[in-house]
Amino acid sequence: MDADCPAPGLRSNCPISAALDVLGDRWTLLVLRDVLLLGKSRFQEFQESPEGISSNTLTERLERLERHGLLVREAYQERPVRHRYVATPKGRDLLPLLREAALWGMRHVPGTAQVPEEMLRDRDGAR
Amino acid sequence: MDADCPAPGLRSNCPISAALDVLGDRWTLLVLRDVLLLGKSRFQEFQESPEGISSNTLTERLERLERHGLLVREAYQERPVRHRYVATPKGRDLLPLLREAALWGMRHVPGTAQVPEEMLRDRDGAR
Repeated sequence: MDADCPAPGLRSNCPISAALDVLGDRWTLLVLRDVLLLGKSRFQEFQESPEGISSNTLTERLERLERHGLLVREAYQERPVRHRYVATPKGRDLLPLLREAALWGMRHVPGTAQVPEEMLRDRDGAR
Repeated sequence: MDADCPAPGLRSNCPISAALDVLGDRWTLLVLRDVLLLGKSRFQEFQESPEGISSNTLTERLERLERHGLLVREAYQERPVRHRYVATPKGRDLLPLLREAALWGMRHVPGTAQVPEEMLRDRDGAR
């Protein structure tokens, strides 16, 4: 966590700062939540989430997640071509962070849904 | 994680979304890192962190952290009055999330410092 020689593109050598630089803002993590915990994979499914992400923001965040290697885009249909987004191992490895965010929200923010522990596990095995 | 009846001020009932709404952006979490992991407590100490937070941003984020009950401000000197910021139990309870961010950064972002596990523990016991 010192700044002696930060790698290019990083504000510092601190791994927390680096992780936050990759993740960007809260929309990025909400898209990852949709993929990792809610089994969503398509643009329209992400748009249907209750937080109401705008089309432009969603496009930008999906590009960001692809660029950083957290999601990959695959065509699942031709004519018209349709894509879905699938988490990479690097993306799935953010599940513990999402789980801690959920546990903290349930403990400290009144009015949040109390989600059973088993919903906070990787759905990948179930696909 | 449904939107049937979100509490006032929340975009949805999802505890992950609620946690992210409280935390705001990455600067908030970097100030918490400084307090919880680096033992910092004063405005100037936060400013000296290598990420280079601006004075205005720091002021706004400290107010946010106080408003949400994650930090409390205490006077530690009179004439001139000087304040320090101390984490509440609600703020300290974000340590597992910060730890997961650090572990992910170390695993997946090249060029980050490899921080020993014991540095990712709450410093509160040592104060």
